[in-house]
Amino acid sequence: MSLFFEITQSLDGFVAGPAPSLEDPLGKGGEALHEWAFALRAWREPHGRDDGEEGPEGDLVDASRARAGAVIMGRKMFSGGSGPWDEDPNASGWWGDEPPFAMPVFVLTHHEREPLALGETTMTFVTGGIEEALARATEAAGGKDVQVAGGAEAGQQYLAAGLLDELLIHTAPVFLGAGTPLFLGPSPDTRLEIAESLGGRLATHVRYRVVR
Amino acid sequence: MSLFFEITQSLDGFVAGPAPSLEDPLGKGGEALHEWAFALRAWREPHGRDDGEEGPEGDLVDASRARAGAVIMGRKMFSGGSGPWDEDPNASGWWGDEPPFAMPVFVLTHHEREPLALGETTMTFVTGGIEEALARATEAAGGKDVQVAGGAEAGQQYLAAGLLDELLIHTAPVFLGAGTPLFLGPSPDTRLEIAESLGGRLATHVRYRVVR
Repeated sequence: MSLFFEITQSLDGFVAGPAPSLEDPLGKGGEALHEWAFALRAWREPHGRDDGEEGPEGDLVDASRARAGAVIMGRKMFSGGSGPWDEDPNASGWWGDEPPFAMPVFVLTHHEREPLALGETTMTFVTGGIEEALARATEAAGGKDVQVAGGAEAGQQYLAAGLLDELLIHTAPVFLGAGTPLFLGPSPDTRLEIAESLGGRLATHVRYRVVR
Repeated sequence: MSLFFEITQSLDGFVAGPAPSLEDPLGKGGEALHEWAFALRAWREPHGRDDGEEGPEGDLVDASRARAGAVIMGRKMFSGGSGPWDEDPNASGWWGDEPPFAMPVFVLTHHEREPLALGETTMTFVTGGIEEALARATEAAGGKDVQVAGGAEAGQQYLAAGLLDELLIHTAPVFLGAGTPLFLGPSPDTRLEIAESLGGRLATHVRYRVVR
């Protein structure tokens, strides 16, 4: 089992723009980060559409999806920023009735809550911290890999704890100027090597392996 | 004439580590950023060595060098961080007797100073700001392009002023954790497109074109 963190950043290192909200969970300008994905069949299919482009970037998205048997995400990524969660701990997040995961999802949170079944995705809320979430996701993944899907804070926590095996970073040719930084002082002791890279028209994709 | 900014950053967005000094101008850990270049014939040759590897990354370095007819750099890049410059405005910097540029170099500074001839490189000190430096470098380049070679602050100034045509960013699989950030709140209004990308073993290279 490998634990990989996959996320898209701007050229200036932000994964969301300023002022994220339930209506605008990626913050001001943040949607532009993901333009590289929106056109791909590999992205559109899990989002319920049956068209889109094929190619090396689609293959990369497919491969990342195929290797994962479970997903871990932070609470803000579930609920869409500082949304109604804080007032209503039973809010259903912003993933709608058919989240694109179609595999077990574990949400890092401080609020105890019953699992939430949405289409083919069951969201399980974990209050015991990143190691408990990893243990449960690993079990649910049934031998496949586990993906930390974001946000930045969840990835930073797994990185700082030395639990990540890989980072798959998509960098879009976009400046956000402010917002949520992907990295905030990760340990310089973390050694990486480039495992794979792919240049696209709307993003550059690099898979880094953590060297132990 | 195109104005391009070329620099190497860490995965977490720093171009130098903490505490740069004359002895350690790239700061703690900063040397590791440039490992991708050290092995290349294209890098070694201008540094007075006649060996090194050929390949696509070398071709990219050669191409970047061949297109440039003049270089602009910040004062700290000339003098090697907060070195003896502040005490001795006639200090010769840390480029030695044979700087690797072998073309006219314009140094952004607040100190008036006579040009400094070092081997095939003449360093000219410009106190009139980035536009004056650009005008003089453009003239000296004789129809070729002008390279902003760093540091981060010089690049940021040209970017913020809307004067850059391209950015050539090399990203090394290194975390520095702290240091000199490549970008500090550039305008989100700057639109970019990816003009070229190349994945190497020790760095990913992306050339971004500014869209006007």
